[in-house]
Amino acid sequence: MKILVINCGSSSLKYQLYNMDEKTGVVLAKGLVERIGMEGSNLQHTPEGKDKFVFEQPLADHSEAIKLVMDKLIDPECGVISDLSQINGVGHRIVHGGKYFSDSCIVTEEVKDAIKKCFDLAPLHNPANLMGIEACEKLMPGVPQITVFDTAFHHSMPQKAFMYALPYEYYEKDDIRKYGFHGTSHKYVSMRAIDMLGGKKESKIITCHLGNGSSVAAVKDGKGIDTSMGLTPLEGLFMGTRCGDIDLAVVFYLMKKEKLPAHAIDQIMNKESGVYGISGVSSDFRDIETAANEGNERAKLALDMFHYKVAKYIGEYFIALGGADAIVFTAGLGENSKTSRAAICEQLKCLGVEIDEEKNSKRGEEIDISSPNSKIRVFVIPTNEELMIAQDTKELLDK
Amino acid sequence: MKILVINCGSSSLKYQLYNMDEKTGVVLAKGLVERIGMEGSNLQHTPEGKDKFVFEQPLADHSEAIKLVMDKLIDPECGVISDLSQINGVGHRIVHGGKYFSDSCIVTEEVKDAIKKCFDLAPLHNPANLMGIEACEKLMPGVPQITVFDTAFHHSMPQKAFMYALPYEYYEKDDIRKYGFHGTSHKYVSMRAIDMLGGKKESKIITCHLGNGSSVAAVKDGKGIDTSMGLTPLEGLFMGTRCGDIDLAVVFYLMKKEKLPAHAIDQIMNKESGVYGISGVSSDFRDIETAANEGNERAKLALDMFHYKVAKYIGEYFIALGGADAIVFTAGLGENSKTSRAAICEQLKCLGVEIDEEKNSKRGEEIDISSPNSKIRVFVIPTNEELMIAQDTKELLDK
Repeated sequence: MKILVINCGSSSLKYQLYNMDEKTGVVLAKGLVERIGMEGSNLQHTPEGKDKFVFEQPLADHSEAIKLVMDKLIDPECGVISDLSQINGVGHRIVHGGKYFSDSCIVTEEVKDAIKKCFDLAPLHNPANLMGIEACEKLMPGVPQITVFDTAFHHSMPQKAFMYALPYEYYEKDDIRKYGFHGTSHKYVSMRAIDMLGGKKESKIITCHLGNGSSVAAVKDGKGIDTSMGLTPLEGLFMGTRCGDIDLAVVFYLMKKEKLPAHAIDQIMNKESGVYGISGVSSDFRDIETAANEGNERAKLALDMFHYKVAKYIGEYFIALGGADAIVFTAGLGENSKTSRAAICEQLKCLGVEIDEEKNSKRGEEIDISSPNSKIRVFVIPTNEELMIAQDTKELLDK
Repeated sequence: MKILVINCGSSSLKYQLYNMDEKTGVVLAKGLVERIGMEGSNLQHTPEGKDKFVFEQPLADHSEAIKLVMDKLIDPECGVISDLSQINGVGHRIVHGGKYFSDSCIVTEEVKDAIKKCFDLAPLHNPANLMGIEACEKLMPGVPQITVFDTAFHHSMPQKAFMYALPYEYYEKDDIRKYGFHGTSHKYVSMRAIDMLGGKKESKIITCHLGNGSSVAAVKDGKGIDTSMGLTPLEGLFMGTRCGDIDLAVVFYLMKKEKLPAHAIDQIMNKESGVYGISGVSSDFRDIETAANEGNERAKLALDMFHYKVAKYIGEYFIALGGADAIVFTAGLGENSKTSRAAICEQLKCLGVEIDEEKNSKRGEEIDISSPNSKIRVFVIPTNEELMIAQDTKELLDK
């Protein structure tokens, strides 16, 4: 069974074609289209085991971009299948499922309507996601399209966790509540963690997706019960350029003090804050670590603040879960920075967390880095959102 | 030694006259002026051991209000001293000390200038606080005036705890950072808790000031190292009518969705949110508890959310402190609601917290409500900010 996974951004498109005859999947080809609708649009296409092909040509919209990807997938030179009919289904990553979706599902007119209803909640992402679906429907009539939502995994949160203490009417009327994001990643790594715990049915897992975008989730018996991102991805941990949790009175204070309109504050808090804002160095944690090692005080501060904040969220979710069997680190920083993992775990000693320095030094593999005495297992699990989307798609097609 | 404690609100003034010959103080008289500068202004004055006297008369400003209080303190009928010169010092509660004050201090011109510099940070409170100081200076020339700041106790927070992940320039230029409030209360109850722990020098205490305004603090060896309120009292726990921590993108979303200007959103989040906003019943926790007992689902939700949020903050500060010797409940709800204390502590079992049902039923006294097996002591300590201000004032006068 061959499944194409598509992730449309506002001006980009990522894809992977999987052979899903095995549960863990085999990638046949993958690639990236950049600068859709802009000067210099291009496709970077890599068939498995071959070098990257780069095609530069004008691509007016997502439909043209997907058409080009399809052409290359069946191209005698760089293709990996002979005919598009060999694709059994397409799995689409959708950022915001709002209150409508608690799981992945096959696209119908109702599904597309609900995705549209969430445009206001994710104005940059959901319209692009929908364009991707509609382009595939046109180019591959009859092939099932499946939607996999970034918010769906957190849909099992209890009301006490997802409500804000605002006038109740805004929840009823405007759907203002916590939704959470990175759900596909939290789902994937928590499923892997349950396996690593021996498949136990009752489990309490804290998953830390730490990267350019970062969030923490509390997962009980395989279900999300709390998470740090909220109505939008701005809440929770601060990140590359997002400010995360701050006193929201800062918005009003800055508007007055700096005489800035609301949209400028919005921009500052989403694009100029986070580790970039504190350090002034970069939004990339690797650059921050380098600068800190070279003695840059503000880079050190940014890392200190980040590790402290992650550790505090783990404390919150230890309470939310009533304990923890495992803590999982994933995504760019979580998978690759042994110093960040060590700095965070150092603050968790009071929970009985102990890590093994040597195991913590390994990279790029699923590993239990806790020492035998640790009261909580600590796992590093490389995330794989594309595989999770392919697995969800396969499961729906098999039904 | 007689000390007058004054707490000026925007249109109100509270006072207590203490005899501080004993450390725990004796209240000689106390009272309240309401509706200063408005129709129906009045003074309610209660000499110790006597009934309340009520005086209705026009009071144009805080200066006139303080003059009336002074007159009544020496009045043959309702007074408790024969001459104002018997007052050795006046302790003033100041809401915002900004970056300037890490402790209480004697008023000088520099002190008044610094209080003025914090007007923007507390536009409703600091100007009223300063009016109180200046009125006393005029009426009691030569009597030392002492300022006790709500923010000072938290001044010992490390930078990783007080910084926001915003562009660094806003910290340097506009002093935007976490300050914390209720410091006088957190200081008082944490000092009492240290006593109850046997006066140990190294201590880790989590203080929960839960009332119409609510905050949690982490106190290490008697010093504040983190707290839930921020630049303003809006951050952290939600409260009677304040929304506490939410995704700040909600500000921008609501402005767009409801077509409201920023100041209207500010108003909603400060005055129409919290338990009042969720329940639609009241901003008073006693009313919410009654409604919940009568089956009101939204009142139940408000309490569930509040208990969950407090428990999660305790989890955060358990990490921040690297463990905890004691958790303290204080203020209106913390002192009086056994059901709230029980509901919060139920969620702390994973930290080894156990409370004794019978001890938890007592009211209005300092008590250790934990069971002998509890790994963390749980104290109920009635707060006494006025006494703390009187003690600080005495200490400065004794120097």
